[in-house]
Amino acid sequence: MSNFNIAVLDGDGIGPEVTAEAVKVLNVIADKFGHDFQYTYAPVGAVAIDQTGNPLPDETLALCKRSDALFFGAIGHPRFDNDPTAKVRPEQGLLKLRKELGLYANLRPVAGYAELADLSPLRPERMKGVDMLIVRELTGGIYFGEKGRKDDGNTAYDTCTYTRMEIERIVKMGFQEARARRGKLTLVDKANVMETSRLWREITRELAAENEDVELNFMFVDNAAMQLILNPAQFDVIVTSNMFGDILSDASSVLAGSLGLLPSSSIGSTVGMFEPIHGSWPEGAGQDRANPVAAILSAAMLLDHLGLREEAGAVRRSVNRTLGEGVGTEDLNPRERLGTQAFGDRIAHAI
Amino acid sequence: MSNFNIAVLDGDGIGPEVTAEAVKVLNVIADKFGHDFQYTYAPVGAVAIDQTGNPLPDETLALCKRSDALFFGAIGHPRFDNDPTAKVRPEQGLLKLRKELGLYANLRPVAGYAELADLSPLRPERMKGVDMLIVRELTGGIYFGEKGRKDDGNTAYDTCTYTRMEIERIVKMGFQEARARRGKLTLVDKANVMETSRLWREITRELAAENEDVELNFMFVDNAAMQLILNPAQFDVIVTSNMFGDILSDASSVLAGSLGLLPSSSIGSTVGMFEPIHGSWPEGAGQDRANPVAAILSAAMLLDHLGLREEAGAVRRSVNRTLGEGVGTEDLNPRERLGTQAFGDRIAHAI
Ligand SMILES: CC(C)[C@H](C(=O)O)[C@@H](O)C(=O)O
Ligand SMILES: CC(C)[C@H](C(=O)O)[C@@H](O)C(=O)O
Repeated sequence: MSNFNIAVLDGDGIGPEVTAEAVKVLNVIADKFGHDFQYTYAPVGAVAIDQTGNPLPDETLALCKRSDALFFGAIGHPRFDNDPTAKVRPEQGLLKLRKELGLYANLRPVAGYAELADLSPLRPERMKGVDMLIVRELTGGIYFGEKGRKDDGNTAYDTCTYTRMEIERIVKMGFQEARARRGKLTLVDKANVMETSRLWREITRELAAENEDVELNFMFVDNAAMQLILNPAQFDVIVTSNMFGDILSDASSVLAGSLGLLPSSSIGSTVGMFEPIHGSWPEGAGQDRANPVAAILSAAMLLDHLGLREEAGAVRRSVNRTLGEGVGTEDLNPRERLGTQAFGDRIAHAI
Repeated sequence: MSNFNIAVLDGDGIGPEVTAEAVKVLNVIADKFGHDFQYTYAPVGAVAIDQTGNPLPDETLALCKRSDALFFGAIGHPRFDNDPTAKVRPEQGLLKLRKELGLYANLRPVAGYAELADLSPLRPERMKGVDMLIVRELTGGIYFGEKGRKDDGNTAYDTCTYTRMEIERIVKMGFQEARARRGKLTLVDKANVMETSRLWREITRELAAENEDVELNFMFVDNAAMQLILNPAQFDVIVTSNMFGDILSDASSVLAGSLGLLPSSSIGSTVGMFEPIHGSWPEGAGQDRANPVAAILSAAMLLDHLGLREEAGAVRRSVNRTLGEGVGTEDLNPRERLGTQAFGDRIAHAI
């Protein structure tokens, strides 16, 4: 029997609904395996701006820091996207959380489900054997670099900076994940024009010496964007910088046929954060329509991270079995269509 | 009868072979429509490094500057990609050419051919109605910004800078192209985190006031990478920065089923450059295997740019007709398989 404190930041839009299903599943696991999970809820994103003016209130951050793991729903609201003058944005809460908690690695597994092959935009033969993991650097690069204006606001700049330390830790994680999977690592960069990319290549070559059991190759980002569509099955683990990872992980996420299926983890030195990759889908909020699978599989990643591998496996098997029965939310175009809660119930009962 | 001086930089790998077919087609057009095209050949890329040590020799640049248009084959050789210590690279020739000639706009049309629908990695229903143009800024942004090392080489940086002038001219071109097509313009950026993107949005909103007949929308680059795979038919013209354009235009280029089909133009204030989008394919060089269509359609873009619209139309119709007959090079998996030269002959004769 183990005790774990889990911070729950369910956020905006459909965030609270899918999070509720993940908690439902975690509770079944706790019962079945005799654990004690304590959940503490806190606001983040647009909801937090409305309540406190701050997308990441200090209490929320403090709670995260003293928790064993952090479950995150979704953030964002169109009210802010369409307001160019908004000084405070929900996304700032997420960026600050990543930085403050040192969540420097974002892991995004993408695999095709045979029973959902029809959903993929790609032809079925291209999806065969797709099983990859994108390891994206999450707290460095151009999204966090110095930025500003010059010439009375008529010139803008953003700086992409990477240090040896930042690159080493994420590339090491890439090698480690590759070793635990099919033993293949692809570094994606733009070393033919970018200096930061050349440093990534240099360091990766150095680390390759201690990781000779992993097959390493290099690919330019423009080519990688093509290869993800042409032949995604060629990839095992991709490691890349923050911006390239942002673009490529989103591109790869549509291959499986629904964003509602894909989990992610953001990890670093201490507490990890687990989050479905989909957004807050404000138009669908409160209607029991959102797919809870991405959230539930994020809970499985959370269990893995706490060292509860058997429990994580039980969740994944249950999801697979339930999908195999042809049930699901509308996005899956299933034989038997369920709402968010009923779908979550089915997965929880199948454990 | 008009006279035009065309600089021909056929470059590396299959560059010379596909260029020869484009010139073959241009000669038929010259005969038929009574023009006089003068071709002057000059080295660029790996070939130029071997001959002169410089990927863009001064004579080549001078020739380009005094020509009416520039036809470009392909550059690049794996010898340089695999040598991290190489100080001189073929790509530098291309980057310098863009900068020196002021080729600030890269135009990449992508359309599906009904008779080649089987080649696309996407399901046929997703390819229906795909007909888009990516307008990529080509001489600014992070590929050209200040870059270097600090801390004894252990920190690297690249700077993305955009000025009002650079953004205005390319966004204006985006509006203009959209007006000549289906009247829809999408600005792709990352305005939720990048300051340069915010300046792009600001200026695009300003220009929208003078372009009210064009429907404008904004999309984050991560979402755009998804939408290009999920529903590429939604796009008419996309305008975006150098790096985002590099990634998205390559991603969109695979949708049609073969890189061997797609042309491009790089234009600016004076001389324009016309180039197939595919690379130098060194393994295929000298074997009469490369698809000449991308080069031939680039020649059609060149004709358009010289104001010879009827001539350009004749080339495009001839390509369509020949593809419709089920002939082609190996990449098209055709009923009747031809070599580069024989395929070029068929297209030239069909004019
Ligand atoms: C909201 C945004 C800043 C964020 C990012 O790009 O990092 C998001 O797109 C993501 O990928 O988690
Ligand atoms: C060779 C390279 C520098 C170039 C670029 O990215 O600009 C190429 O990828 C292209 O897209 O023309």
